[in-house]
Amino acid sequence: MKADIIAVGSEMLTPHRQDTNSLYLTAQLNKLGVDVVAKSIVGDNLKLLTSAVKQALNRADIVFTSGGLGPTMDDLTREAVAAALNLELSRDHDVLAALYKRFAERRITMPPNNARQADVVRGAQLLENSKGTAPGQYLDTVWSGHRKLLILLPGPPDEMKTMFERAVAPKLRETIPARHIATRQLRMALLPESQVDARTAPIYTQYKDVETTILAGQGEIQLHFLCGATSAERAKERVDELCGRIEDELGDDVFSSEGESLEQVVLYFLEIKGATLATAESCTGGMVAERITSVPGSSRSFAGGAVVYSNELKRDFAGVPAEVLKQHGPVSRATSAALAEGIRKRTKATLGIGVTGYAGPGGGTERTPLGTVFVALADEEDTQVVERRFLGDRDRVRLFATMLALDLVRRKLM
Amino acid sequence: MKADIIAVGSEMLTPHRQDTNSLYLTAQLNKLGVDVVAKSIVGDNLKLLTSAVKQALNRADIVFTSGGLGPTMDDLTREAVAAALNLELSRDHDVLAALYKRFAERRITMPPNNARQADVVRGAQLLENSKGTAPGQYLDTVWSGHRKLLILLPGPPDEMKTMFERAVAPKLRETIPARHIATRQLRMALLPESQVDARTAPIYTQYKDVETTILAGQGEIQLHFLCGATSAERAKERVDELCGRIEDELGDDVFSSEGESLEQVVLYFLEIKGATLATAESCTGGMVAERITSVPGSSRSFAGGAVVYSNELKRDFAGVPAEVLKQHGPVSRATSAALAEGIRKRTKATLGIGVTGYAGPGGGTERTPLGTVFVALADEEDTQVVERRFLGDRDRVRLFATMLALDLVRRKLM
Repeated sequence: MKADIIAVGSEMLTPHRQDTNSLYLTAQLNKLGVDVVAKSIVGDNLKLLTSAVKQALNRADIVFTSGGLGPTMDDLTREAVAAALNLELSRDHDVLAALYKRFAERRITMPPNNARQADVVRGAQLLENSKGTAPGQYLDTVWSGHRKLLILLPGPPDEMKTMFERAVAPKLRETIPARHIATRQLRMALLPESQVDARTAPIYTQYKDVETTILAGQGEIQLHFLCGATSAERAKERVDELCGRIEDELGDDVFSSEGESLEQVVLYFLEIKGATLATAESCTGGMVAERITSVPGSSRSFAGGAVVYSNELKRDFAGVPAEVLKQHGPVSRATSAALAEGIRKRTKATLGIGVTGYAGPGGGTERTPLGTVFVALADEEDTQVVERRFLGDRDRVRLFATMLALDLVRRKLM
Repeated sequence: MKADIIAVGSEMLTPHRQDTNSLYLTAQLNKLGVDVVAKSIVGDNLKLLTSAVKQALNRADIVFTSGGLGPTMDDLTREAVAAALNLELSRDHDVLAALYKRFAERRITMPPNNARQADVVRGAQLLENSKGTAPGQYLDTVWSGHRKLLILLPGPPDEMKTMFERAVAPKLRETIPARHIATRQLRMALLPESQVDARTAPIYTQYKDVETTILAGQGEIQLHFLCGATSAERAKERVDELCGRIEDELGDDVFSSEGESLEQVVLYFLEIKGATLATAESCTGGMVAERITSVPGSSRSFAGGAVVYSNELKRDFAGVPAEVLKQHGPVSRATSAALAEGIRKRTKATLGIGVTGYAGPGGGTERTPLGTVFVALADEEDTQVVERRFLGDRDRVRLFATMLALDLVRRKLM
């Protein structure tokens, strides 16, 4: 089966924005055994969009559009699809009622153009949008004598993904002849990509039937494995065997073997150990706390946090002794340890994290240059401090310091 | 003038690789006053590529291809262009001689398929590739009665960029009538996209020479304006005039008129007023502090922050009185006010922010349902509290609550 993906929106024809929805869709389609044969990006222009839909129908069995389903006058995907297939649009009363209700709940009068989101291509099934207002559409139709699926998805990535997962994937699984796919993902924090590749390539190149991809970004390395086989058991067996051998090689460096984020793993360990965590952050400015509290249920294990830039607050909120600050300075091994120990005591947490460093763009000394970060982890018995220097801009230093802090907690609890 | 860009290569139809050449080309073309009206990504398939070239010629004045000019059998761009235009390919003897020479210099026998790089579409001029072996091609031709430029560039980004800069841009500057471009951007927090459109469409639709795009995401709406004119002054004048009228309509809702982020604007105002800010966050878990401290130099204006999930910490770090918590509960108007006032006093800041709410997935009561957020802002004289209910998942509620808090500070300082 062949698919074509059309990203709709003039903003993706500027130098500043790029279509990324198609990367997600491609990954999902590949898992279903569907190849993407072409993609296009078209602006908010009815004529061009209509012709792009026709061309896509000529070259693929399944055509996806993402974007152009919103309420404004430049949201034209519904009209273009109807025009390409020579079908009518009709206004769906249930969708319209839901739109009115949604606005009423927020005590806002619905601007009339919102009603366009209720326009449905004749014959299409509606796909629920649990994250936004514009429903998707799923059309099983015939074009030049061939059966075609035309699937209209919203543009915002979270809406698109949720809709694909909940409403589209189950339908496609019913429609497409089964090929069994198994995937796994291993994640490592803060390792160089070249090192991961050097350690794992001798293993994964032995598995010709498993596709292995290394991705680097956001302070972590991911190894993705994909195997297609005639039975689900066989596919899973191959992926699991390869994963097992790579986990043996990488050991504790692997923080996740089922795709969980580092903060999810940290919270999982805190929960099963019955432990709590508190944070005192200087250069990361709350990023460690923010990452941890992004996980649902984190309130059970997160005791609290302080963002302490000034010496005064380091003392008041995290109990850092004045003489430590005076003798060692705010960016030092001793201060990070005092932050971790102090916040732990103040919040009565099992573990305390202290982070201090020079994130830039200014700051740094000859002995402690820009990009240096001290992360300390304290428990009842002792305090461990890690010093690292990260290259790159403020955002990168803050991100890597946050990953380092979270990974330290994980290794402690493992 | 309108351009279309075709990226050629099957690797860009996987989930892991993306066409980025088109972003560079778009930026360069926009500077020349050329708009990109559509882009596509096509695999190494002669039939699909030929049809993509035809479609591009139908919709644009200038068509670029990048990739598919190499020596291997799946490099098919030359053949596809020749087929689309019904022109012949002929082998250029100078290019062929240069290829033989290049291989001879490296003491390597040239594999025969390399000669394909010397195949030229009849009528095309060759473009020198100073970074690789495959020359580009520049064809000034007629299609359906209209003059068209068809420009074949190599795929590797450094080869493509150098060739564009040295060989293509000078030709285009001679060919395209000079046009000057001006752009602006307005940003608004937390408004529904449809409301912004309803309020501004009556204005921007009057400016046919200014292209207006509405983008929504990450809790904000952006209005992008672009105008091309015969002089730079005229283009700027038109964009500024439209921007001015839209700013009059939207008033204080516009937080940025030059593209700055909300946190940058907040810090700018804090700095010029000589004010400082402190945060006490419950449901946002440090996100407000993290956003503010992401801006370089924020340590001058950010007094500090506390992440206070538990009642105990709300009391200890932000001085929330026990009777407030007991009488009103942790998620309440009174508690948010006490958080803002308490953190302000504890940190001696000019302004204090308090955030509490039910971010989900659990929580909420009948009177205070899931998604409800209270954000309070305290100064020396009084405390204002805003209650809002946001729909969506934990991430969305936290993001919107953060935007609300930052926007409240901005409005206070303006």
